Amino acid sequence: MDCLFCKIVSKEIPSSVVYEDDTVIAFLDINPVNIGHTLVVPKTHHEDLHALPDDLLAKVALEVKKIATAVKAGIDAEGINIEMNNGAVAGQIIPHAHIHIIPRYEDDGFTHWKGKRGYLGGEATDVSERIKSQLK
Amino acid sequence: MDCLFCKIVSKEIPSSVVYEDDTVIAFLDINPVNIGHTLVVPKTHHEDLHALPDDLLAKVALEVKKIATAVKAGIDAEGINIEMNNGAVAGQIIPHAHIHIIPRYEDDGFTHWKGKRGYLGGEATDVSERIKSQLK
Repeated sequence: MDCLFCKIVSKEIPSSVVYEDDTVIAFLDINPVNIGHTLVVPKTHHEDLHALPDDLLAKVALEVKKIATAVKAGIDAEGINIEMNNGAVAGQIIPHAHIHIIPRYEDDGFTHWKGKRGYLGGEATDVSERIKSQLK
Repeated sequence: MDCLFCKIVSKEIPSSVVYEDDTVIAFLDINPVNIGHTLVVPKTHHEDLHALPDDLLAKVALEVKKIATAVKAGIDAEGINIEMNNGAVAGQIIPHAHIHIIPRYEDDGFTHWKGKRGYLGGEATDVSERIKSQLK
């Protein structure tokens, strides 16, 4: 498969690996938001969160915690953002599920998206019912 | 404990709940980035990712997948961002671990942080070694 992350997993393409085991490989993002920005990539190819098998996802979540805690300690970060982009419109560039670990510092210049608008009238009820209907 | 999310868990403060079980409550963010922006909150109080017990985190990760898939289907989102902010400098406003599920659409106007600069000289090796040293 012509997948950049599969090639990093197979070592066909080199990366700055910070951790590796049977389940995941973690390496420095080559275009870091802040120095130490790390990607955690499940070794098997699944497109995104929705496609990740439950047993794999449960393992990956624990790896992300372990690696995020190591990133924070290793480079003295003051906070950590965990981000997972699912779908091209959500900023997912490589269609192989991966999680970003982004070290943060006071006044590092990054800010989060602001809400566009609040809910109007009965809209929150309507929206929550539409989501709930998918969880029955 | 004077924690907003503990009060939402206990129903002392109302919210637009989309899902609830023994492990988590999920409800609409009252200041949504996009309509349908949902928060998944473990019912027990832990400050952030680093403090979440492994067994709880593994369960929460599966809930996030299930609920994110329902958000996407329920409101016809085109993509989903998963975000978890850990620490005030990372944008965590409520110090009770929680995960954001953000529905995304083409041309919705949100963009991700750009990298500030790449790694210089042997910096990537140094940084990856510092993180690795925490994982031994």
